[in-house]
Amino acid sequence: MSNATASIITIGDELLIGQVIDTNSAWMAQELIKAGIWVKRRVAVGDDRDSIWNALTEEAEQADIILITGGLGPTADDITKPLLCDYFGGKMVMDEQVLAHVTHLFEKVFKRPGPLLERNRRQAEVPDVCTVLHNARGTAPGMWFEKEGKVYVSMPGVPHEMKGLMTDEVIPRLGKRFVGAAIESRTLLTFGIGESALAERIKAFEEALPSHIKLAYLPNYGMVRLRLTGSGPGKAALDMELDQLFLSLQQQIPDVLVTNRDEPMELVVARLLLSSGKTMATAESCTGGYIAHRITAHAGSSTWFRGSVVSYANEVKQTLLDVPQAYFETVGAVSEEVVKGMIAGVLNRIDADYAIAVSGIMGPGGATAEKPVGMVWIAVGSKSRVQTKLFQFRFDRARNIEMTAISALNLLRLFLLEEHPAS
Amino acid sequence: MSNATASIITIGDELLIGQVIDTNSAWMAQELIKAGIWVKRRVAVGDDRDSIWNALTEEAEQADIILITGGLGPTADDITKPLLCDYFGGKMVMDEQVLAHVTHLFEKVFKRPGPLLERNRRQAEVPDVCTVLHNARGTAPGMWFEKEGKVYVSMPGVPHEMKGLMTDEVIPRLGKRFVGAAIESRTLLTFGIGESALAERIKAFEEALPSHIKLAYLPNYGMVRLRLTGSGPGKAALDMELDQLFLSLQQQIPDVLVTNRDEPMELVVARLLLSSGKTMATAESCTGGYIAHRITAHAGSSTWFRGSVVSYANEVKQTLLDVPQAYFETVGAVSEEVVKGMIAGVLNRIDADYAIAVSGIMGPGGATAEKPVGMVWIAVGSKSRVQTKLFQFRFDRARNIEMTAISALNLLRLFLLEEHPAS
Repeated sequence: MSNATASIITIGDELLIGQVIDTNSAWMAQELIKAGIWVKRRVAVGDDRDSIWNALTEEAEQADIILITGGLGPTADDITKPLLCDYFGGKMVMDEQVLAHVTHLFEKVFKRPGPLLERNRRQAEVPDVCTVLHNARGTAPGMWFEKEGKVYVSMPGVPHEMKGLMTDEVIPRLGKRFVGAAIESRTLLTFGIGESALAERIKAFEEALPSHIKLAYLPNYGMVRLRLTGSGPGKAALDMELDQLFLSLQQQIPDVLVTNRDEPMELVVARLLLSSGKTMATAESCTGGYIAHRITAHAGSSTWFRGSVVSYANEVKQTLLDVPQAYFETVGAVSEEVVKGMIAGVLNRIDADYAIAVSGIMGPGGATAEKPVGMVWIAVGSKSRVQTKLFQFRFDRARNIEMTAISALNLLRLFLLEEHPAS
Repeated sequence: MSNATASIITIGDELLIGQVIDTNSAWMAQELIKAGIWVKRRVAVGDDRDSIWNALTEEAEQADIILITGGLGPTADDITKPLLCDYFGGKMVMDEQVLAHVTHLFEKVFKRPGPLLERNRRQAEVPDVCTVLHNARGTAPGMWFEKEGKVYVSMPGVPHEMKGLMTDEVIPRLGKRFVGAAIESRTLLTFGIGESALAERIKAFEEALPSHIKLAYLPNYGMVRLRLTGSGPGKAALDMELDQLFLSLQQQIPDVLVTNRDEPMELVVARLLLSSGKTMATAESCTGGYIAHRITAHAGSSTWFRGSVVSYANEVKQTLLDVPQAYFETVGAVSEEVVKGMIAGVLNRIDADYAIAVSGIMGPGGATAEKPVGMVWIAVGSKSRVQTKLFQFRFDRARNIEMTAISALNLLRLFLLEEHPAS
């Protein structure tokens, strides 16, 4: 039993001139894999008739399912819908259900005064050779075409509209249409070991893997994720095989293993805190609120996260975190003394059990001879115990902020493991 | 004079299973356009010999320049380099300069003990038919191939390594090799008007555009960016023509125009603050530090941003922002009273001229009958004047956080314009 394959075509000049980063494709790929469909290729083309037409033809030679996003907006730079109509040999017709939905959205939800614009009315026109898919979240409907055994689905490129359509309409329909082998994967996260050294340590494991199971290395900001992906006729047997291999893999790298789930560092910290009913706070200088943002991006974080003082100006470190003014004149803001003081201060001001404090130079400006760009002091701790560590990161501001956040969360993780070794 | 075209091939299973979002391509496209090179297509393929081989052949039929990222790491899932060697008919040889660089990196920078691993040594092997491009930031060198008038460049997929290679090596070399027509663009940002309504207002302008200038609509989180892009033989004449059209476009939409630069909302606020020598702070509940993070992601923000209190727990709103406890029992945390109190509190605690305060329900949990998911109170103001506004956003947590941040920054922008109309 083989798996259906998909190709994703994204349409829009904005993708080719780099003004928009394509986050849709990654999300779509994850959902397709869960449904047992491999993504074979992704192609981005501009708002150009020939380019789109050729992409449709080419991708149909490579995959069973062609998912198309973008090019369906109400403005004149959108040429996709008439092209799809021609490509599949239909003619445009008004869909009364879609028209009612578009009218409802503009009148009741967007509350735009006046009659429906002609350009919005036209959003309810669809080729008569497609199955219309209801887009609850927006004005452009999804369209499902079939031709020579291949399925083509066109969706708007607005991420939350595409997600709604995929979840409610496309994935369930594809699930009925294509039944393939199970695809399963297991992902773990390591910290503090490079890709090469890691590969060296698990070389024998990797070489002994059966051919239907692949190991991938995904390095990212000082972390390397390892992913085992397998496919097989039966989900139960595949799950058992993967579980066994995954356990064996973990046992070979206990010292660098952060988590055996596909989750970000902050959710590892979250589980450690939740298991002992504890909470945390952050005192952030150079990360400027980014650690708190990473944490609060997750629903339910209010259970274990209390708040943060973003002490970007040194004066705020004094007034809200009680760091003695003298430190700034002697050791300076980027110092062990200051991050220790920030921990004490934030735990004094915010009722939390543990805290993270960071102070560093993110660049490109702000460096001195003694304190280069990328130098960061991190402290983690409780009211009774604090650990500090000096880091020297490299390259650009965005990377330094990211590295600081991940390193700080990892230090707190290790600190919590020492406090509650049983977790 | 026509422009050279490029196609970007990204290699890696991780891109097809959705575990990594491709941010490289957008950055590359921006740099290429500045060099007068249009990106025609982007293709992502897996770590599979046939897929990569076919992509090379196909893209060479479409573009003059084929840029390849990924597939060059030190682990066994990387098959790209030997494939490129075969494709261009070469054989692998050790490059002594690259070997010296790799050895230096592991010994001096990564400080890894022991001799160089064989897998790292192999990173210094290159096909003898390529020009080696020095990768100052990592171990995998860039490789420049030429075949039948087309240029192919292979680079590692690690973003900051790819960026270093593009800036230092690839773009300068492409600039010498391909001289094309100038490509220029102008981008403005609108807020508070939908794509359709905007298109309706500037319909006559759009229809009168000459064929070598295109207008694109880029909607994103309540904002629509409008971009004029043109190409022409002379940069000076094109600049003048674009400037004139761009000015005319701005004059038609003064009420919704946020900025006539291609910049995010927070940098518009920054310029307003800088022009009057003022500073700001934030008091964030539901955004959890995200507004502060957006601000501090920009170098130089310490000039106009002082800090933030992330009062995720209500208790922090009381202790650090002096919001009366009674509010939480009467009107609740998501209320006009509380965000007003947060403004007063944060400006009392942090020495800034202006502040933003937000409190809302981001979902999926936390909603009540009176306070649904997406309900957010935002306040902006100074010690002497505060404005508040109630918002009702829709859909998911990530989108609600984003919409809240942008709406809050926009409210402060309008507030600052009222304070200093001359700005």
